[in-house]
Amino acid sequence: MKSVGRLYGLGIGPGDPELITLKALRLLRSAAVVAYPISEKNQQSLARSIVQEYIKPEQIEVPLYFPFKLELSSQPYYDKAAETLAEHLKLGQDVVVLCEGDPFFYGTFMYIYNRLVDRFPTEVVPGVSSIMASGAALGVPLTYRNDVFVVLSAILPAEVLKAKLVVADAAVIIKLGRHFEKVIGVLKELGLYDRAKYIEKATMPDRQIIAIEKVNSAEVPYFSTIVIPSQWRSDN
Amino acid sequence: MKSVGRLYGLGIGPGDPELITLKALRLLRSAAVVAYPISEKNQQSLARSIVQEYIKPEQIEVPLYFPFKLELSSQPYYDKAAETLAEHLKLGQDVVVLCEGDPFFYGTFMYIYNRLVDRFPTEVVPGVSSIMASGAALGVPLTYRNDVFVVLSAILPAEVLKAKLVVADAAVIIKLGRHFEKVIGVLKELGLYDRAKYIEKATMPDRQIIAIEKVNSAEVPYFSTIVIPSQWRSDN
Repeated sequence: MKSVGRLYGLGIGPGDPELITLKALRLLRSAAVVAYPISEKNQQSLARSIVQEYIKPEQIEVPLYFPFKLELSSQPYYDKAAETLAEHLKLGQDVVVLCEGDPFFYGTFMYIYNRLVDRFPTEVVPGVSSIMASGAALGVPLTYRNDVFVVLSAILPAEVLKAKLVVADAAVIIKLGRHFEKVIGVLKELGLYDRAKYIEKATMPDRQIIAIEKVNSAEVPYFSTIVIPSQWRSDN
Repeated sequence: MKSVGRLYGLGIGPGDPELITLKALRLLRSAAVVAYPISEKNQQSLARSIVQEYIKPEQIEVPLYFPFKLELSSQPYYDKAAETLAEHLKLGQDVVVLCEGDPFFYGTFMYIYNRLVDRFPTEVVPGVSSIMASGAALGVPLTYRNDVFVVLSAILPAEVLKAKLVVADAAVIIKLGRHFEKVIGVLKELGLYDRAKYIEKATMPDRQIIAIEKVNSAEVPYFSTIVIPSQWRSDN
């Protein structure tokens, strides 16, 4: 009797196909099943597009339909995705789930993981996060020595953003989209605006680095980030 | 006349040689000069040991001597390291500087970078951070959806740690070493102790995952981490 397959959450990095790790590439190439989130709306998978050159025709591809905006009602989608993958795992097929950036850092893999980890052997392969890729692309060191580093979602209310930003030596604000103007207001109020750097789609082919005062707030995509780099001090 | 060489800060990942990216490996293999931090005390380079299998005999190796504990007096070491690399770059040799984890995230590369970026073409290649590797190794999702994520150095005073931890949904505390007991006290006071997970040297061959109540505080190394994973809530 064949044993069950192994489930892998593969961090495939922030967008540049060359920023995948050797380990993720090896596991991707050797898996029977390659699964990835796909948007129900436009039938596109960003994760698949990043690694498409590495996928072989004989591999079974399994798109996982997730709503773009995660609401409470996402849970049935995760239930269904987990059950689909469980069917393959029960047949003894190894399954890799492609995860942009790192699987456990603001992703969707944890919803699959939490549903399957007790039923199948599971491994998470960490990946390069867009946080680190943004610092590298902007040419700004993120954190020195004993800096306090904070990651925030732009979706949070202005008052919450303010309360969290004041404790940080360096910060990254993700998922700007339509929240850009609110964030800019907060940064100005806290005296952080002059340090803030803006980047869209770090390491993807259509990456944009724009001086923050020239950003058109009507065109800020979801995959955009403001980095507030640490300030070098003589004691760090 | 030959032009100057290019300087690369290479993120080589958290310790497992297979967690280097394809890009970092390509640049490492093609560089004339491979530089890495080395401890003056024991003449060992952790960064070199991670990628030693990829270094070729014909490559020029340049150890950069940094004191282990970064003090104000480290600055002359960085001056000297930068000048050593500048000599190679002026000869038209490409130089890679090996950086554990990510080059711009709590590293030493930024000190080299700040000294040379205006003189030579420079690129930073992001890497997998030990933060993400710790979450993966522990099997705990770090952050969901709109969580506030905080990274702290254990060196900070207890009162400071407390003030920063209270704003976090999820946190990672790095560089525990002799500060372990102080951190445990803070976590207990904030009611975070039961959620805390301990890991030493994530993805290195001598990695240890120890139940936090069984950690011997006298033996906690510098490269150890406490992860306080996010708590899944129905709204994330």
